[in-house]
Order: sequence, then C-alpha cells, then structure tokens
Amino acid sequence: MLNFNFYNPTQIVFGQGQLSQLDSLVPKNAKVLITYGGGSVVRNGVLAQVKAELAKSARSVSEFGGIESNPKFATAMQAVERVRAEQIDFLLAVGGGSVMDATKFIALAAANADYQGQEEQLLIHGFNPVPVNNAIALGTVATLPATGSEMNCFAVISRGEDKLPVYSPLTFPKFSILDPELTYTLPAIQVANGVVDAFVHVVEQYVTYPTGAHFQDRTAEGILQTLLEIGKTTVDEPSNYAARSNLVWSATMALNGLIGSGVPHDWSVHMLGHELTALFGVDHAQSLAVVLPSMWRVRREPKREKLLQYAERVWGITEGGDEARIDAAIANTEAFFNSLGIATRLSAHGIDQQGVERVLQALEKHGMVALSERGDVTLEVSRQVLEMAL
Amino acid sequence: MLNFNFYNPTQIVFGQGQLSQLDSLVPKNAKVLITYGGGSVVRNGVLAQVKAELAKSARSVSEFGGIESNPKFATAMQAVERVRAEQIDFLLAVGGGSVMDATKFIALAAANADYQGQEEQLLIHGFNPVPVNNAIALGTVATLPATGSEMNCFAVISRGEDKLPVYSPLTFPKFSILDPELTYTLPAIQVANGVVDAFVHVVEQYVTYPTGAHFQDRTAEGILQTLLEIGKTTVDEPSNYAARSNLVWSATMALNGLIGSGVPHDWSVHMLGHELTALFGVDHAQSLAVVLPSMWRVRREPKREKLLQYAERVWGITEGGDEARIDAAIANTEAFFNSLGIATRLSAHGIDQQGVERVLQALEKHGMVALSERGDVTLEVSRQVLEMAL
Repeated sequence: MLNFNFYNPTQIVFGQGQLSQLDSLVPKNAKVLITYGGGSVVRNGVLAQVKAELAKSARSVSEFGGIESNPKFATAMQAVERVRAEQIDFLLAVGGGSVMDATKFIALAAANADYQGQEEQLLIHGFNPVPVNNAIALGTVATLPATGSEMNCFAVISRGEDKLPVYSPLTFPKFSILDPELTYTLPAIQVANGVVDAFVHVVEQYVTYPTGAHFQDRTAEGILQTLLEIGKTTVDEPSNYAARSNLVWSATMALNGLIGSGVPHDWSVHMLGHELTALFGVDHAQSLAVVLPSMWRVRREPKREKLLQYAERVWGITEGGDEARIDAAIANTEAFFNSLGIATRLSAHGIDQQGVERVLQALEKHGMVALSERGDVTLEVSRQVLEMAL
Repeated sequence: MLNFNFYNPTQIVFGQGQLSQLDSLVPKNAKVLITYGGGSVVRNGVLAQVKAELAKSARSVSEFGGIESNPKFATAMQAVERVRAEQIDFLLAVGGGSVMDATKFIALAAANADYQGQEEQLLIHGFNPVPVNNAIALGTVATLPATGSEMNCFAVISRGEDKLPVYSPLTFPKFSILDPELTYTLPAIQVANGVVDAFVHVVEQYVTYPTGAHFQDRTAEGILQTLLEIGKTTVDEPSNYAARSNLVWSATMALNGLIGSGVPHDWSVHMLGHELTALFGVDHAQSLAVVLPSMWRVRREPKREKLLQYAERVWGITEGGDEARIDAAIANTEAFFNSLGIATRLSAHGIDQQGVERVLQALEKHGMVALSERGDVTLEVSRQVLEMAL
C-alpha cells in the first residue's frame, strides 16, 4: 500500500425526502445564490422545493441558471459577478456534475480578490491545488448520479477547446443532499452515462498495477459489481428506488478519494476523453466508453496483473489462459456499456482518422504526452488507442 | 437502502514515516497536551519522536500518561484538571483506542464549563450525541489497529462497573497519523485482539437483515476478506508491512461510519461483551469473540439471509443446505478467532454459570433488555447466548 492522505469533510444527507433537511443545513442568515443548469430543475419542481425549504428561515435567496454541460469559464464568471454584486455568502448547487463543478469555481473566483480580473489564472494549476485561502461556502442538491462532484473538491472548467481541472481543499461541499427520487426524471441516456462514468472512475484507480492494497481493491470491485448488478435496471426502470439508490451512492463513492487512497492512478482514459468532448462535443461518459476498451487492449502488458484480477473478481472469469481471460474481461466491459445504449467506437460519434489527428494535436498542445499510472501513454500510444477505437 | 447521514471530517495521514507531518498538522502556536497510556510509547521511542516533531515550532507541550485500558472516568478527570490549569488548546492522543477514547472525553469535559463539577453527566446520553457546543481540538497518533477510534467521534468511558458511551460531532480527531510501522512492537495478543475487534465491528453492521445496500455489503465483505487474508500473517509476522498496513486501514474503515450508513446495526455482541469486560476484565476483543458465535447460533433465524450471504461471499461456502452453510460459516469464524490465539468460550476466562448470572444482572441494571437490529435480544435471549458460550 502506498502512503496516502485522505480528507473528505462533506456531510452526505442521503435518501428519500431529505430535501427537508435543507433549512437546517444552510445557515439561517445566509445570502444564498442557487446555481442550476438548463432548466430541468425548474420543470421537475426541484427548484421550487429547494426555494420553499430555504424560505423557512429569513434568508436572502437569488438564482443563477443556465450553466451548461462542460461548464464554461465565461458562464461561471457571470455568476461570479452576481456573487460580488449581491455579497452572496452561500452557494447552493442544484443539479449534476457540471453545475457542481461550476459552483466550485465560482466559490474560488468570487472569494479571492487577488485573482480579480484574471480569474483564468485559477485554471493554470493542473492537478495541483489552487494556492488560495478563501472560498465561498457551498452545498449541493445532487440530481444526477455520475461525476462524484457532490463529495469531492474537484471541478473541470471549459475554456475554448480546453477542459481545465481546478481544486482546493476549500471546495469540498459542506453538505450534499442525495435523494435518489430527485433523479427519477432524468433521460435514460443521462442515467446510462452516469453508470459508465462511475464505472470508469473506479477502473482509473483500480486497473493499474498491484500495491497490495486489499481494502481499496475489494471496495473498487464492490462498486463495479454493484454497477453491473443495478446498471441496466436503473436505466430501464427509473423509479426503481433499490436500483437507483445504489447507483447514486456508488457514483459518489467512485470518486470521493477513498478507493484512490494508497494506490496508483491512471486517468489517461479521461485525458483522451476530455479532448473528444472538447473537440467534438461527445458526452463525457461516452468519450470514456470509447477510449477504455482500446486503452486496455493496447496496454494489456503494463496492466496485466490487475486486468486478470478484474476478470476474476468482477466478472467471475476463471477459465482459460491469461490472454483469453483478459480478452473476455475487456469484451464483457464493452458489452456492458453497449447494453446500456453507450457506443464504444469513435465512428458512432462520426469521428474518423482526421478526427484522431485533431485529438493527437490537442493532446500535444496540452502536454498530455506521458499519461497513465506509469507515464507510458505517449502520443504514439494514444494514436494506437484512438486508431483501434475508430 | 435506508436513509442515512454520513459525516467524517478526520484527515488520515497514512504510511511509513508520516510522523514527520506532525509539525504541519498541529497549530504552530498551540498549547499541546500529549496523552498516552501505560508507557509503551515511552519505551519504544514513539513519544520521543512525537515530541521532537512538535518541538519544530514554538509550541508549549506537556504530557499526561497512565491512561489505562478501558479508560476510567477518574483518570480522564485528572487530565481535565491539567487542561484547565494549563489552558491547553490542543490534545494529541498517542496510543490505542483507550487513549483516544479518553482524550475525546477530556476534550468535551474540559471545554464545557456548564458541566464543571458534574462531568459524569456527560456520560448519561447513551447513544445520543452529547448536547454541547465546544470541545478542545484533538489529533491522534494511532499505535494500535483495532477500535477505529482514530476516525470516529465515539468514546467509551468506564465508571465503576459501567462502560458508558459518549460522543459528539465535535470529537472527531482533526487528523490521525496511521503509520503501520509504529505498531510493530505491539505484543502478538494485542494484534490478534485488533483483528478480532475490527472483524466484529464489521459484522455488527453487516450480519443483520438485507436492505439492498450493495455498496455497503460489498465493502463490509471486502474488509472481512482482507482480515481473513492478512490476520494470521500480521499476528505471526509483526514487521510484515504489507499485512500490517492492511490491518491498520481495515480496522479504521471498519468503524468510521461508512459501512454502517444506510443499513441496520446490531451491537448486541458489544453490549454483552462490555459487561464481561467490566465484571471480569476480559479484553474487549476477547469478550466479543466469546459472544459472537453463540449469538449467531441463537439468532440464526432473524439473521438467516445475511448469514447465508456471509457464508457464500466471505467464506466461499456454496455447497450444502442452508443450515449446513450457516453452521459452517459460524464454525469457520470461530476457528479463525481460535487460529489467532483468541478463545471463544467463557470457560477460557474462568467464567461459569454464576458469572453468567452476574452478567444478566448487569444487563438488566443497564437497561440492556431489547438489544440488536430487531430489538429481540431480551434478557432471556442473552441468557441462552451466554449459557451456550460457557
């Protein structure tokens, strides 16, 4: 087991009817800005419920809607202006990962005067924490199980064709309300995306190389098994509480730091996926589903031991030689994604060899030339992966 | 899955050499009281290392040693007087569960003036949080993997023949340093106790009745499998880092609230065990090992589905009828404890029928007449369990 530092102070309030806790979770005298996305929370009534709860104490409450998928720097900056103008001291994100991510950035940009006028400088720190001492307090009402943003301090912000990470220990939500019933009205494709997103989050921290971290491995396998058990059901039966509650909690646990403590991380699938999203607008999860099987086929040697462990423990594959078991595990993974209606080929998104070249140029521009748990995903390896995924 | 609230803000600093983080974790200007136990941390040099790290900044540092196993109210109160007299503002527990538990009580008693002179009133709240608004900040350097106290807010304090729980959200450690190497000098029996303690913590939250909480079940099973995989090795080979690091992290994860979120809890084994410890001085973990197998034999009906799941997933028992599989799982559990040198009979501790009567009187006195996840462990059921364990 590698040395690690684990810290996650977000309070999770999970289950049916838990929106009723909101009045006790948000400070009674707060000046609240509710942030949300394209309006689904208006149409399904969640925003109205949130406002009714907040109105139980004498708070000032205003709203900022219109945060898009892959939230844009420019959009978030509009909210930052609102926060400054209205002296907001609590941000409540009501939505999915994009709304939560944007809200984390808003919390940082609005609270650090030394970045004023040059807030884009908050986005240059890559996978290092932003060196700031302040953030506006934030909470979330999570309506889309997928990204794990409700229980971590990470955000990804889009600026032009760049998807840029930003985080600080100060951007953990104070609380997140996870009521699975609030997700019932999601389109099936978004639920399927959520299953795939959570699945790939786990394998980026698990299918690397062994470090003898038993608890982390078993817990990662437990999340994957859970997603296999309930994935199809929760896409097909949106109001099945048993299935949906397991998706919601699994998606949170997939990326809250726990299973990634003391083990190597890959994230090369995400880095290639980010470029596909930025260049071609492929949904985040769908970009991962395209890259993952080919990445594993290309990198079967450096991942051999963990792929075999994955084959046996997650899929129960114990027959056949090593190569056959690895092949079967990858094929099963691809079939699982496909069973949810998620494609695993670039061609399904209309991306051809010319597109591959554009992705490679973007990876080079972004310095993504030595990715993965071993730093061995060079541009040449990325080329092999992308061409295999055509 | 049941509704739940999960909150755990303790920062975990895990691994070899992590004592070197202490200077950055404890406030630079703090007035620190180091609390410890019977002196093993003096003899093995850990206390000296801790003091050397704290001396890297201009802190005032004093010490309070002599906290016993099953820490006594009277002992903790001596430390409370020291905290008041010296205006201590940071408590650093260096030791195992008893030291950490006592330190949590000290943190509450010393910071709440309205309890002054009647600090025993902090212990009357049972399994409800103490209604207080203050606690001295505390951190831990954990030297004994067992109780999970390093990452939860709970403490158990002994007063006369009573073992009394006390907790508050304010008594989470700010941080816990978990360096598996600091545990190498523990006597083998204490390591074995730790394995059993962690094991029983898990099953009290897992072998109850099903609620369809897949992640929690899989994670509980993962901890149990890990303890089976490394338990004997870490007792026999104290300097085996791979095994010991897995014990340390598993013991922490067994009782930090995670696997217990959204599922029923039992804890009847602990309640009977507490009386055995209070009356006869049986080590905590050894009291649990005595009670558990008999508890499961007596309560196989209310626990049937989970015992079968436990048999299959933790022990791989898939052959035979239901009764045979349950019998085998219980027998395997008992054999596992025995393989670590831990007895599973009252007679091994010199406790006879007369002792059983005393335990039953104590349970009645303490109101422990409707224990377990179903409230069905009456005094009569406890009698059956204890007599079966003779």
